[in-house]
Amino acid sequence: MKAVNIGLIGLGTVGSGTLTVLKRNAQEISRRAGREIRVIAAAVKDLSKQRDVDTEGVYLTENMDEIVNHPDIEIVVELVGGDGLILEAVMGALDNGMHVVTANKALIALHGNEIFQKAREKGLVVAFESAVAGGIPIIKSIREGLSANRIEWLAGIINGTSNYILTEMTESGANFDDVLKDAQDLGYAEADPTFDIEGIDAAHKLTILASIAFGIPLQFDSVYVEGISAITGEDITYAEELGYRVKHVGIARNSESGIELRVHPTLIPVSRLIANVNGVMNAVLVESDAVGPTLYYGAGAGSEPTASAVVADLVDVVRTITTDPENRVPHLAFHKDNIIDAPIMDMSQVETAYYLRMTVTNKPGVMASIATIFGDRDISIDSILQKGSGHRNDDVSIIMLIQNTLEGNLVEAVTRVEELSTVKGRVIRIRMEQLS
Amino acid sequence: MKAVNIGLIGLGTVGSGTLTVLKRNAQEISRRAGREIRVIAAAVKDLSKQRDVDTEGVYLTENMDEIVNHPDIEIVVELVGGDGLILEAVMGALDNGMHVVTANKALIALHGNEIFQKAREKGLVVAFESAVAGGIPIIKSIREGLSANRIEWLAGIINGTSNYILTEMTESGANFDDVLKDAQDLGYAEADPTFDIEGIDAAHKLTILASIAFGIPLQFDSVYVEGISAITGEDITYAEELGYRVKHVGIARNSESGIELRVHPTLIPVSRLIANVNGVMNAVLVESDAVGPTLYYGAGAGSEPTASAVVADLVDVVRTITTDPENRVPHLAFHKDNIIDAPIMDMSQVETAYYLRMTVTNKPGVMASIATIFGDRDISIDSILQKGSGHRNDDVSIIMLIQNTLEGNLVEAVTRVEELSTVKGRVIRIRMEQLS
Repeated sequence: MKAVNIGLIGLGTVGSGTLTVLKRNAQEISRRAGREIRVIAAAVKDLSKQRDVDTEGVYLTENMDEIVNHPDIEIVVELVGGDGLILEAVMGALDNGMHVVTANKALIALHGNEIFQKAREKGLVVAFESAVAGGIPIIKSIREGLSANRIEWLAGIINGTSNYILTEMTESGANFDDVLKDAQDLGYAEADPTFDIEGIDAAHKLTILASIAFGIPLQFDSVYVEGISAITGEDITYAEELGYRVKHVGIARNSESGIELRVHPTLIPVSRLIANVNGVMNAVLVESDAVGPTLYYGAGAGSEPTASAVVADLVDVVRTITTDPENRVPHLAFHKDNIIDAPIMDMSQVETAYYLRMTVTNKPGVMASIATIFGDRDISIDSILQKGSGHRNDDVSIIMLIQNTLEGNLVEAVTRVEELSTVKGRVIRIRMEQLS
Repeated sequence: MKAVNIGLIGLGTVGSGTLTVLKRNAQEISRRAGREIRVIAAAVKDLSKQRDVDTEGVYLTENMDEIVNHPDIEIVVELVGGDGLILEAVMGALDNGMHVVTANKALIALHGNEIFQKAREKGLVVAFESAVAGGIPIIKSIREGLSANRIEWLAGIINGTSNYILTEMTESGANFDDVLKDAQDLGYAEADPTFDIEGIDAAHKLTILASIAFGIPLQFDSVYVEGISAITGEDITYAEELGYRVKHVGIARNSESGIELRVHPTLIPVSRLIANVNGVMNAVLVESDAVGPTLYYGAGAGSEPTASAVVADLVDVVRTITTDPENRVPHLAFHKDNIIDAPIMDMSQVETAYYLRMTVTNKPGVMASIATIFGDRDISIDSILQKGSGHRNDDVSIIMLIQNTLEGNLVEAVTRVEELSTVKGRVIRIRMEQLS
């Protein structure tokens, strides 16, 4: 059977990895796909740049329109990232009858609804396995592997940079700024790390996961986002002492009152498998009604791990390229007419447990006034740990674990506590999930 | 679009689970599949038996031929287990143009080659996700999610009974027989537990995993099989002391000299994620050239977890039911003409590390004679732990960790050691894998 012709847009880290894997494993891949997959052209930023990857037989151009309008290309692989011009290129490729594979989480999270609409009209496939958790086949697992289930919730460590920083802080006791600097030196964090450490990248991915898990439209703007830049070594140490590890987690939950979409640092019991996912590795834990918990673990970024998912998508497209479009796997796991616009809950409506830490002056009645504030709002304290001298009028740290409660109530209580004259500064607050 | 009609063979644990999940999640499932999936008939062992599951609208019969010859059934779901008559029924269904979904690992491991041959001739799908690791979508992940990769090895905790027993022995310090009895009382082990605790069930599953990972024919007879019945609490304790956990693992490795297929108890460093997979849970760790390590975790057995995979297969079949058979996912991940009959290595050719424990009389020269035996065969000792009194002529236990070596050499050395007059009884030997 004749080869399938591919055009790449982007020949950076992931683009080079994709070309390398397609060449090195050409035989292995065509044994699986049943046809040869051949890259015939690639759009690059700078033709004059020296490249490590072997581009023999690949027509290189600085003009991505040449890819989108190439008469022999059947599948366009977009590996540039960002939106704007890239959205135009992807829509152009679909207009020209080309299938699309993309690793671009921002593009899918922000513009996926219109992209899939166009693809359906044209009877084309848009595949995006590599957009979430790199090389882990999490889109496929949820979309196809768990199709029997009502998915209840999922929780993912889906940003390698944040997980690397938290892991290093936990293991070495170093502070956030020093670890971030090391991560930048090692190439695990960008020069401007905002997207990763402030949770925006994780929120893009959570948007996509929630959509395929629950059959809801993509809606990035509804995700609650908090990064890891406020986490201190002190909190990590206390959490450990209490049997918890601090992880940056994206959580989507389908509850009776609506769907929770949130990205924030979270204490997880050390005994949970996902609490032991360290360094730049990613993992997604999915709780479903029939199968119960399942977990998917692997590299969430990097050249070849991401290429692994890009090429898996190519194989999928090749395997289905001649079939009836109506019967393909729907982009968002559910068929178009069954996308339900369920309400997204505001963060204040979300119920979760908390780790709180506050500095107070050690004098009679302090604990009583704090406990009264929580008690008045029906908030239960699970355990209290006091750190510091026993001398009257000295500063001591109080750590509290708070049982599941509405975030709105908790925020109000914490505000009152902070107004007490015996409480110094802000109350540190980290959410806590049993994940079971 | 009109409903797809299903016939069940078997309405035991998994059959009831399948019917229950299909009914409870009917809406969720048809939102994904695009069509209603309706069970219209089921073959049962005893019509008079009281059932918990709601069989309204399902025609029940004790004659499975009625399912296989039913004019309205498009997909037959086989959930009885075993071979013999069941193989006949499956081949009959294929002859009659029905697609087949099965949870039967023995059937696929022993007769898969002929079943798939018939299915290809007829242009039909045979799906078997539930045959390996229950509800974990491991077949799909390897066959489709990792299709870009040259898979190097995989290691799986793929028998829940064995993992439960080892976990209990580790956590409670109880011995094998007592834990087995508890497991039987709890329903985690069969009255005759041989298939599970002697590794046969795990070997069926490993046969299937290896085939789809490497593109080789199914060949159960080539798997090396060792169960857990010889593991003692003493060994588990020492392993822990050394930083390892004892797990029952199926390993398939594609090495230059051939393919390793083996099922046996294995020490794994406690820090590995898979070492922390406890109780009846399963996990499969796959090492591939592009993506690196990925791990898949979940329930490996049980009514609804297994039904989850059965129904996922049904959705897959429904999604592809009208497509060109040439372009479907090949049963064994690789296309028929690309199945390579690569040689399977004999266990003696396999290189692995070892945990050894022996009882010796504490007198001068004992250690020297043991060390000489290993040294003469170029076998390196990584560490030695001596347990027991320091008094001359008392019995002491010696535990050794042996670096990677050919099993053939190790067996020979151990035989020599056992012949020493100062060594009492047999040398306990458990293989050890870094899994990294």
